[in-house]
Amino acid sequence: MTRPPASRAEAIDRDRADPLAAQHALFDLPEGLAYLVGHSLGPPPRTAGTRLRAAQEDWQTGLVRSWNSAGWIDLASRAGDQIAALIGAGPGEVIVADSVSVNLFKLAAAALPLARTYVLFVEEDEFPTDQYIAAGLGDLSGAEVRSLPPGGTFEALKAGGVYLKSAVNYRSSDVADMAAHEHEARRHGALILWDLSHATGVLDLKLTAAGALLAAGCTYKYLNGGPGAPAFAYAGPEISNRLRTPLPGWMGHAAPFAFDAAYVPRDGAARFASGTPPILSLAALSGALDALNGVPLGALQAKARGLGALAIARAQAMGLEILSPLEDARRGGHVSVRIAQGYPVVQALAARGVMADFRAPDTVRFGFSPLFLRHETVWDALDALADILASGSWDQPQFHARAKVT
Amino acid sequence: MTRPPASRAEAIDRDRADPLAAQHALFDLPEGLAYLVGHSLGPPPRTAGTRLRAAQEDWQTGLVRSWNSAGWIDLASRAGDQIAALIGAGPGEVIVADSVSVNLFKLAAAALPLARTYVLFVEEDEFPTDQYIAAGLGDLSGAEVRSLPPGGTFEALKAGGVYLKSAVNYRSSDVADMAAHEHEARRHGALILWDLSHATGVLDLKLTAAGALLAAGCTYKYLNGGPGAPAFAYAGPEISNRLRTPLPGWMGHAAPFAFDAAYVPRDGAARFASGTPPILSLAALSGALDALNGVPLGALQAKARGLGALAIARAQAMGLEILSPLEDARRGGHVSVRIAQGYPVVQALAARGVMADFRAPDTVRFGFSPLFLRHETVWDALDALADILASGSWDQPQFHARAKVT
Repeated sequence: MTRPPASRAEAIDRDRADPLAAQHALFDLPEGLAYLVGHSLGPPPRTAGTRLRAAQEDWQTGLVRSWNSAGWIDLASRAGDQIAALIGAGPGEVIVADSVSVNLFKLAAAALPLARTYVLFVEEDEFPTDQYIAAGLGDLSGAEVRSLPPGGTFEALKAGGVYLKSAVNYRSSDVADMAAHEHEARRHGALILWDLSHATGVLDLKLTAAGALLAAGCTYKYLNGGPGAPAFAYAGPEISNRLRTPLPGWMGHAAPFAFDAAYVPRDGAARFASGTPPILSLAALSGALDALNGVPLGALQAKARGLGALAIARAQAMGLEILSPLEDARRGGHVSVRIAQGYPVVQALAARGVMADFRAPDTVRFGFSPLFLRHETVWDALDALADILASGSWDQPQFHARAKVT
Repeated sequence: MTRPPASRAEAIDRDRADPLAAQHALFDLPEGLAYLVGHSLGPPPRTAGTRLRAAQEDWQTGLVRSWNSAGWIDLASRAGDQIAALIGAGPGEVIVADSVSVNLFKLAAAALPLARTYVLFVEEDEFPTDQYIAAGLGDLSGAEVRSLPPGGTFEALKAGGVYLKSAVNYRSSDVADMAAHEHEARRHGALILWDLSHATGVLDLKLTAAGALLAAGCTYKYLNGGPGAPAFAYAGPEISNRLRTPLPGWMGHAAPFAFDAAYVPRDGAARFASGTPPILSLAALSGALDALNGVPLGALQAKARGLGALAIARAQAMGLEILSPLEDARRGGHVSVRIAQGYPVVQALAARGVMADFRAPDTVRFGFSPLFLRHETVWDALDALADILASGSWDQPQFHARAKVT
């Protein structure tokens, strides 16, 4: 681990040596914008637009024939294979489909009969949606849902149920030790369903090596797949063909065009495809994944953590409390900082071209997407924060006004 | 009901008098193509491209702010309101979300506790996906799934369960009497979940007037929303606020940005939104719906049925057996014809610029999308069919070769 740059000049030196500089050139971010919310919605790489325009053209001219001629029929599988390479999994182990919520539901429902006990577990500070899904699935299936204290999953694995667990906590940025959890899970007949939403595209994930069997994740954050881009589902080959989806659809059928009344699932993760995927959104995602082709995951992770370390060092120098792990190896792609007046401070930052986000009551999150951010940009963004805090310029009426989305 | 045109000149006269001629001009179909598979994938109206390009631009420049500034946050509700107007329902009663399969699952699961008996019913010739979903839901929920003979739903309503039923049969084009079914359902504590996939955008649907309470449907057929465009869910105001979705997500939460650990559903159909919708695909759909703004449903239905009647008259003149109702009032937007050598005939038609589709073993379907088709085009397409059958020109090796999609 290298120390963070101590000056603007050093930050610029880091950018000169950045092995991901070529990826930066694929983005056309508005001039002067420090976009530190790529963990919320990534910006479009040019490759996304290229594929989206091609899909529009295929719709216009090839029409329904494009299911074959333009390869729409297996686009979700091919995009899944692209994502598999980004999470340390193999071909056929990931399918792009539906939303994270729907995928968590399908995978958790399929996991319940294979776990030693028919119980769902979720930590009480887990991403809210994951908690809703656990509750919804519990109501419908009759599975008991047990709430765990923050970080309580590892200890609870001995109960042998199904566990929804984020690889990176959306608020703190804490990274879970996937391999240790999986090792413990196997001892007790437990199954862990990993939510990779805040981890994919920013960490050097190694699902196969860690023994992970089930995961779902988001594609519109660090993968830059576009607003509401379809999510992904991972099922390890050790169990995938024993998993029965509760949402069987024609796209997951072994013979989708036979129009059989009986459902026969495809092999592997593809069985978790259900209805027709949204091809235009999927095409944009597929193009966004092209921007990650051949990028070493280690370089992605090192850059994201280097940017995070830079922000942490500067925030500490301002006397701010850091709510994320200081140790790089325990931290995901974003850094959370406690700022009592976080809401108006985030608005004041936005007015100066620095986008961060606020989570009540006092958390400001800065996301460090490694593909398009530069050290210089992050340095200047922290300059802006220091100035806003030192001058008290955040305390103006327009920065206190609430919008629907922050 | 007017008699079908008896000559090409009469067909052209009908086009001159067509009240939907202005809509035809919104489409740029390839020259010389008779696209009779709009019931499979509708072509793009120009309004779809307009909205899609705007959404791309909002992603590029507004970035995450576009959830507010570009109105992404309630786009699914607004598109739902546009669809509500096309099915005879009111504002707030339709939400655009997920796929038809996922929506059927959510609605059927929510309906089960409100029906008199915890049993799912589906006809054995119902669309295959609907049968898969019934089976998947039955497995997970413990609800018994009973298969009914074709057309057996009405008689079975006295069992008081939940019934999946297409308003228009995907194969025969038979139209169900929605009001009669609903009347009978109420007598017995039964709930019908209508699949409107082959009905929306082609029939003068009146869900409120018929007393329908639950429905889902597809947007990429007669609504021309784009490949895999997100589907819709309808929940009537009489019961919507008592329905609990098994797939609660942040988009269906009453306060989506509060990030509460507890789920509180929005009022009305919006509670059936779950994860983030695919905005690019949704934007294209929203634009496609613009092409239907202000179009009288009666005119849509009359034109589709007029085109169907034209095809039926000409197919009968060729001695073909019609597998769809001859009576206009009982028929949806497509017409199925029995042709023993249906597969190569459809290929031979395609080679002459006429697109129809084939369903094994011997059914050829012609879809009559009322927005973009003309009587003249349909007349000429049937000329091509007559010539192919009379000449035997379908019996060439290249027309027997199987592709993945027909």
